[in-house]
Amino acid sequence: MSAKKGKISREKWNNNFMDWFSDILLKAEIIDYRFNLKGCGVWLGYGFNLRKRVFQILRDLLDNTPIPHEETLFPLLIPEPLFMKEAEHVKGFEDEVYWVTRGGSKQLDINLCLRPTSETVMYPMFKLWIRSHQDLPIKVYQIVSTFRYETKTTRPLIRVRELTTFKEAHTVHATAKEAEDQVKEGLEIYSKFYDRLGIPYFINVRPDYDKFPGAEYSIAFETIFPGDHKTLQIGTVHNLGTIFAKTFDLTYEADNGEIKFVHQTCYGISERAIAAVVTQHGDDAGLCLPPEVAPIQAIIVPIIFKGKEKEILEQSKNLLDKMNSLGIRAKLDDSDISSGKKFYKWETKGVPIRIELGPKDIEKKQFIVVRRDTGERITLDFKEGAKKIPKILEEIQKDLHERAKILMENSIKETDDYDELYDLIEKRVGIVIVPLCDEYDCAEQIEKRTEGKIIGTPIKYVKEFSKEYSEKEFNFNCIVCARPTKKKMIIGRSY
Amino acid sequence: MSAKKGKISREKWNNNFMDWFSDILLKAEIIDYRFNLKGCGVWLGYGFNLRKRVFQILRDLLDNTPIPHEETLFPLLIPEPLFMKEAEHVKGFEDEVYWVTRGGSKQLDINLCLRPTSETVMYPMFKLWIRSHQDLPIKVYQIVSTFRYETKTTRPLIRVRELTTFKEAHTVHATAKEAEDQVKEGLEIYSKFYDRLGIPYFINVRPDYDKFPGAEYSIAFETIFPGDHKTLQIGTVHNLGTIFAKTFDLTYEADNGEIKFVHQTCYGISERAIAAVVTQHGDDAGLCLPPEVAPIQAIIVPIIFKGKEKEILEQSKNLLDKMNSLGIRAKLDDSDISSGKKFYKWETKGVPIRIELGPKDIEKKQFIVVRRDTGERITLDFKEGAKKIPKILEEIQKDLHERAKILMENSIKETDDYDELYDLIEKRVGIVIVPLCDEYDCAEQIEKRTEGKIIGTPIKYVKEFSKEYSEKEFNFNCIVCARPTKKKMIIGRSY
Repeated sequence: MSAKKGKISREKWNNNFMDWFSDILLKAEIIDYRFNLKGCGVWLGYGFNLRKRVFQILRDLLDNTPIPHEETLFPLLIPEPLFMKEAEHVKGFEDEVYWVTRGGSKQLDINLCLRPTSETVMYPMFKLWIRSHQDLPIKVYQIVSTFRYETKTTRPLIRVRELTTFKEAHTVHATAKEAEDQVKEGLEIYSKFYDRLGIPYFINVRPDYDKFPGAEYSIAFETIFPGDHKTLQIGTVHNLGTIFAKTFDLTYEADNGEIKFVHQTCYGISERAIAAVVTQHGDDAGLCLPPEVAPIQAIIVPIIFKGKEKEILEQSKNLLDKMNSLGIRAKLDDSDISSGKKFYKWETKGVPIRIELGPKDIEKKQFIVVRRDTGERITLDFKEGAKKIPKILEEIQKDLHERAKILMENSIKETDDYDELYDLIEKRVGIVIVPLCDEYDCAEQIEKRTEGKIIGTPIKYVKEFSKEYSEKEFNFNCIVCARPTKKKMIIGRSY
Repeated sequence: MSAKKGKISREKWNNNFMDWFSDILLKAEIIDYRFNLKGCGVWLGYGFNLRKRVFQILRDLLDNTPIPHEETLFPLLIPEPLFMKEAEHVKGFEDEVYWVTRGGSKQLDINLCLRPTSETVMYPMFKLWIRSHQDLPIKVYQIVSTFRYETKTTRPLIRVRELTTFKEAHTVHATAKEAEDQVKEGLEIYSKFYDRLGIPYFINVRPDYDKFPGAEYSIAFETIFPGDHKTLQIGTVHNLGTIFAKTFDLTYEADNGEIKFVHQTCYGISERAIAAVVTQHGDDAGLCLPPEVAPIQAIIVPIIFKGKEKEILEQSKNLLDKMNSLGIRAKLDDSDISSGKKFYKWETKGVPIRIELGPKDIEKKQFIVVRRDTGERITLDFKEGAKKIPKILEEIQKDLHERAKILMENSIKETDDYDELYDLIEKRVGIVIVPLCDEYDCAEQIEKRTEGKIIGTPIKYVKEFSKEYSEKEFNFNCIVCARPTKKKMIIGRSY
């Protein structure tokens, strides 16, 4: 095995990030937004395959917790009286739900909304299912389309009207302690999920005024787009306490005969996970998919020369069989276009490894592996080389993760100086962590003066969820009012 | 290995078929229709698992045709002008579509309907994708929810308002010949699918006045409910010819530069496939799932006796491990309820094999296998017995199929006597095949006089699709007007 260095460019990717992103989704055949309805896209074959693999990881994680989550499927249409039951919840969503008012040519007696999320569909059913503590816990999830009548600018996979891929998990417990433990399990599942995808993230507790409508508190996973340093929320975990239980009268009979309200949690991840995969690992030439979820892990491009066609094709097929039998998702491109066009096509689509096989290679009994992430060229022996490919795929997976982590860490800044905060946000160098008190006024002042938004409290500063929490050491002064505080907050621009 | 005969009862299943069916769906935890909206159900964990396995078979078949079908996902909402484009299609669906007319508190500029089927969503996209013959064929499918504002009585999994599981495949071809070949591939896929599920079916061409709105012709798969002998349509394959192509202006440039209309097909299967699985193989005690798709293939019930608890449980776990390592989906029920209750529970849920392990069995170094389909008890040796279970599961799969086939064949009658036809339909003994001419009047007369409906022409009498077709031999006289005809038609009651 011998290797040569390669080169990749990230200029366009860096400087025109949103253009690059919108562009590549169609070019790489992930999703086509040219359907005649704003914010609604068509998942193409290749994109659907990627989506399936990404969400299969999430399914596997949910199905295999000590008490498994059960995959289920609840109705899409919510009768108005049900949807309107939980006041806080309604306030959070009523401006953005779609209403079905007609069936055929008939006006409906009761209007139906398209689920923006499924609390008000699921919880009346939970009421039928729960009688005693023996019916608890309930842990279900579904992966469905949800709908939001967005009036803001829509963005591919990020802000859409039909959210085609919303994984929502909902759990019900006998005690507050169990619900809190469930929140921790939710955090763990999502951490594992994004680790598997090679996506860096930070976890924070949302400000109280920005939590999920109907939750006691909300915790969010965010990633940072490497190009423009904006944050993207890619997952949320909510402790609902007994708020919905009281609205939907969800009670159970405890061991001692007492009737008690249940405690609930819910947590969600959407197709933004795909947006994160696409944006974290690309470059100017297109996608660069983590081998773990790449629909095709290795593409074989035979370099056909006249007189050698048959031999080269035969050896290519040979290699394909070897790789498939090793469990590698390999494909041979023997189509009628030029090798150059093939390179371009599969680079755009982010296939992690390209294999070249030309007349010289046949002579030397070798083939060339080109890494999509680095451009590095590795020469492998024809007979034994295929066996080395799983290792190379693993390395690519690891390197992509490392590279993305470094980029993210570089765009997290920390300061306790108000002017520096202002400056950092202005110059769009990343997110900034600052000491802040709990007064809404202080938060508001920052949001008014900078383009940044209060994103949340890094989990490190939250006693219940942090291993690093320190009552003694965490003594700060609010960056705005200088009052003592135990907390820091993240300020940044976000999608 | 020694075996004892068992007994099963099919009285209720036979005589109160629809009651049995509605009942068992909830008891076996397949789907819960108690949601506060007519015709909308909740797939429970166990049912969802069954549904996943059934549709995975269909996915595998579609993904692995010589030119694979690509799984995709298209938007749910259809803008009114798009939906209204194809006149025949609109006529077929306009009375039963749901309309979204409001977003938040705002009236929408353009009303949106919930897809009843996706021709009008997909074909405008196809127009963007097709330029030359090199872009053909297109073969895509999606598995989605569709919506029908049913005004008739709804029935679980059979006639619903949210059809949660609609697999629709759509293909585009350069020539009429290729489209016809595609229809044949569709028929083949569906035949294999239902064979794998052990569901008997017959294939027929729908009468011209009852074809899919916008199709040149429609072919349907039907099964017969063994209890009440009504037919259920469980799949359709349509040749759309150039009808939609002309409406949506779908053209391609041929090799010689000529611009031509494309030829299209579409074919669908819904959650009625699950209704068929449930209804074909049950009995009075509940479901009897084909091992191929059963979420749990074997349930181990330890028969706990005092003093022996530890040993029995240990051996049960031992057996569970053995079975899992053989790839059997086995589960141990070590819950706190009585063995009798466990038997009842897992019989209801249709687990194909129950394994009993009590103190006597431990002594004799054996365990008992009870077949769900026949009640037969088989004693197996503890050490080597697990290896025989895959074979028993195969036998159950085969026997279920055979038994269902015989039941179906017994309820297909044939006559050329009008009074006998009337009698057979009246007595509800099954479907009846009769010679019939092409005059609508003759069909109408039958439908007026009997409770039966013209279902279609058995595929045997259709030249293009039949290996048995015989121009020479097929000479009949219409059962109504006595005119010569080459055709027979199926008359029956249907859901």
